[in-house]
Amino acid sequence: MSKKLDQLKEILGEVSDVNHAASVLGWDQQVNMPSAGGEARGQQLATLGKISHAKSTSDEVGKLLDDLKKEYEGSDSDDAALVRVAARDFDKATRVPGEFVAKQAVVTTSAFEAWVEARGKSDFSIFLPHLEKVMDLMREYVSFFPPSDHPYDALLDDYEPGMKTAEVQEIFSKVRTKQVKLIKAIAAAKQVKSDFLRKGYSEKKVWAFSETIISQFGYDFSRGRQDKAAHPFETSFSVNDVRITNRYEPENPLATLFSGMHEGGHAMYEQGISPAFDRTPLAHGVSSAVHESQSRMWENLVGRSQPFWEYFFPKLKKAFSAQLDGVSAKTFYKAINKVEPSLIRVNADEATYNLHIMLRLELEIGMLDGSVALKDLPEIWNAKMQEYVGITPPDDSKGVLQDIHWSAGLFGYFPTYALGNLVSAQLWEKINKDIPDLDEQIRAGKFDALLGWLREKVHVHGHKYDPQDLIKKVTGSRIDSAAYIRYLTGKYSDIYGL
Amino acid sequence: MSKKLDQLKEILGEVSDVNHAASVLGWDQQVNMPSAGGEARGQQLATLGKISHAKSTSDEVGKLLDDLKKEYEGSDSDDAALVRVAARDFDKATRVPGEFVAKQAVVTTSAFEAWVEARGKSDFSIFLPHLEKVMDLMREYVSFFPPSDHPYDALLDDYEPGMKTAEVQEIFSKVRTKQVKLIKAIAAAKQVKSDFLRKGYSEKKVWAFSETIISQFGYDFSRGRQDKAAHPFETSFSVNDVRITNRYEPENPLATLFSGMHEGGHAMYEQGISPAFDRTPLAHGVSSAVHESQSRMWENLVGRSQPFWEYFFPKLKKAFSAQLDGVSAKTFYKAINKVEPSLIRVNADEATYNLHIMLRLELEIGMLDGSVALKDLPEIWNAKMQEYVGITPPDDSKGVLQDIHWSAGLFGYFPTYALGNLVSAQLWEKINKDIPDLDEQIRAGKFDALLGWLREKVHVHGHKYDPQDLIKKVTGSRIDSAAYIRYLTGKYSDIYGL
Repeated sequence: MSKKLDQLKEILGEVSDVNHAASVLGWDQQVNMPSAGGEARGQQLATLGKISHAKSTSDEVGKLLDDLKKEYEGSDSDDAALVRVAARDFDKATRVPGEFVAKQAVVTTSAFEAWVEARGKSDFSIFLPHLEKVMDLMREYVSFFPPSDHPYDALLDDYEPGMKTAEVQEIFSKVRTKQVKLIKAIAAAKQVKSDFLRKGYSEKKVWAFSETIISQFGYDFSRGRQDKAAHPFETSFSVNDVRITNRYEPENPLATLFSGMHEGGHAMYEQGISPAFDRTPLAHGVSSAVHESQSRMWENLVGRSQPFWEYFFPKLKKAFSAQLDGVSAKTFYKAINKVEPSLIRVNADEATYNLHIMLRLELEIGMLDGSVALKDLPEIWNAKMQEYVGITPPDDSKGVLQDIHWSAGLFGYFPTYALGNLVSAQLWEKINKDIPDLDEQIRAGKFDALLGWLREKVHVHGHKYDPQDLIKKVTGSRIDSAAYIRYLTGKYSDIYGL
Repeated sequence: MSKKLDQLKEILGEVSDVNHAASVLGWDQQVNMPSAGGEARGQQLATLGKISHAKSTSDEVGKLLDDLKKEYEGSDSDDAALVRVAARDFDKATRVPGEFVAKQAVVTTSAFEAWVEARGKSDFSIFLPHLEKVMDLMREYVSFFPPSDHPYDALLDDYEPGMKTAEVQEIFSKVRTKQVKLIKAIAAAKQVKSDFLRKGYSEKKVWAFSETIISQFGYDFSRGRQDKAAHPFETSFSVNDVRITNRYEPENPLATLFSGMHEGGHAMYEQGISPAFDRTPLAHGVSSAVHESQSRMWENLVGRSQPFWEYFFPKLKKAFSAQLDGVSAKTFYKAINKVEPSLIRVNADEATYNLHIMLRLELEIGMLDGSVALKDLPEIWNAKMQEYVGITPPDDSKGVLQDIHWSAGLFGYFPTYALGNLVSAQLWEKINKDIPDLDEQIRAGKFDALLGWLREKVHVHGHKYDPQDLIKKVTGSRIDSAAYIRYLTGKYSDIYGL
């Protein structure tokens, strides 16, 4: 049997090589490529995608998997996990016909262009006919899979394997009530000062400070690099080449520090995966939510915490003495955690972020099952924003048209952002039990015990376990909102004296 | 028939995409990749190479070509050229068995490592057994092709299609006598002053000056970029994304200007190819020698000319007033053209460069036909260096071990460097007939007529014509040394008052 496993690994190794090559091309496109190179790059990526799909859905792979599944049934070895994950990927990929994939590429390319125009003109009617086509595709995609409790399950499963819509809805309904209440209490409290966060911090010095922080966290620059791009992201070409991008926005200069920690968190996950999994489907983070739990933990639970800034604020003040003159560590800590109901998801603070996600999930479910008419989206969006966050967008570009996701056919992705927040807090409670002096370590600028814990419990396993099994194994329960609510309430009660 | 042509273009388009993807990965490896990423990158490149080879040597391609060759015989259309070049590539690629390609990769990987060690220790005996294996491979490679007048023909043909060894030898024998004589005359003349070329020119300012020059030449930065790498090179991902690399050596700071012009020359060739050829085998420069004629023309015939520095020297002096205090444009011009017999090919001046190449060609031919015993290489190398250039290497690291080419199995490549010099002068004489005021244009910093001429006569055609046919079509004769000898003699007679 080991000969068949070797054959499978050989083919999957080549698929991994092709996919990683595509990732290099994608990274280059965002970081270096002269704009004129875009058309050819699109063709190159389409060809690599086609090759990867053909290789991973071949009859040869199907036959190997059929035999190997029987052989490895019931085993919990790495090889058994490889066979299980590969079989799952194969099943999903072979259900979707090549013609559908090609049609989807055409529809989403037009939809993206229409969305750019619609957002620019703040005119939803330009996007509407394209969104209708995208929804037809989504429904067709769902039809390739066995019936489930809810059609949205098939979409969600692509990002959060094994997670069901009903479970997410149940979790979110608990979170929503409590977060809405918390925001109202904060709105009624004395507001915090934050004007010093906007005062001309030089790009070069902010960038250097960002690299100091993530190096100290444990992001390994000898196996990665940070480059400038329009949007911060993390991408991996092997366990030994995991890169991040970042940006600098003059109107919000210190955001670079937090996006660096966020992408660094994703990257440390990928750098920590067992090298034995390289060139296999196990060499990736296990799900979008678990990935997001890592980025949000380093960004928020570490990077927006009081102990963290007790250590780093004196250094920041040294680098930016004029900007931070007269500001204390505590004032700075409060400022970077200021809660401000806002229209745009990507700028939202921790207290409101999940509400932006819940709104999107409710709409996506309604769009898919037909209970939300697409033409009514702007109106429903605005009503929900008022209900959850307490403000109404002045126009659709700051409302229903703000995100790229729907134009790209990325349905099912949004909820994992909020689930990642919940998981980060579940892990955090467990870590603080296992490392009781974690706060003091952070106050001393030491992160090795924290990273070591994450490596051992989460990172090294890559895609070996089902995500919920992994979370339960590590924290004792499946994804749950209690820890996150405790974290949020505790943090903001202190900051706002609730 | 057009359906078959479409099918062929579709497959060759995908092959081109995969090859360009590999080029992006290679560029990234030299420019950005953290060193730890090397092993995975090697596997990714091997997989892309395997896919490209399988796609381009499939039975389907063979059958399409058989039919299309008959259809397009005798035509000189672009499509006929595509079929002809594709058929030639197919014939070459299918003659070489996959096992040979795999064996070659193994042998040259070890040979490269041995060469690095041997050069470091200046110990030829470390490299000798590996070189023996490489030569066995080269002889085996030659055996896959029909018998020719000389076994070296098959190797040369990979870089200079259609060129024969006997023709190169005949050309070189004429050049050698004249260049050796010229060098002796220069050695006996009054030497030129050049110490001011070494005085601490800042990297940042040299780099900016280099980009000013090549922008003014016409290298289009909106379809390319210049990055730092260990070795200067040019690489192309499409006609709209043609990149160059450069370096800065503190001990020879202005070399950056000349390597920028050199790589810029290669890049302007690739940027000038007809966009209609993109994703076909016609979308490349036609041969190594013609490519080198472009790089050497911009570097030497333009960039080391008196009119060029009459325009640029005042600007350079403004940027580097301390370093160039009291230096005139004429003195600077003489200094950058100083002839100094030297041991290392890549540092050689125009007057001696070709002699380094001839030495290598004679040895390669002898190594292949057995008339040169590999163990005697160091001794023969040193004797020929004394005879041609007038100096003897103090050790093998500065002699027979200096070049990477043999360890990589790159036999047949060296002569194209010298042939490129000859072609550059042939083109230059013709250009000066067609643009009689070229010197004055250069003296005014205008290069658009020159680049326009090269685009129309050479660049736009890509790989459409056989290289010698193209050279003859443009200059009136096949590759010939007379123009180059006239150019060298004229230039150095002026500089050294011969």
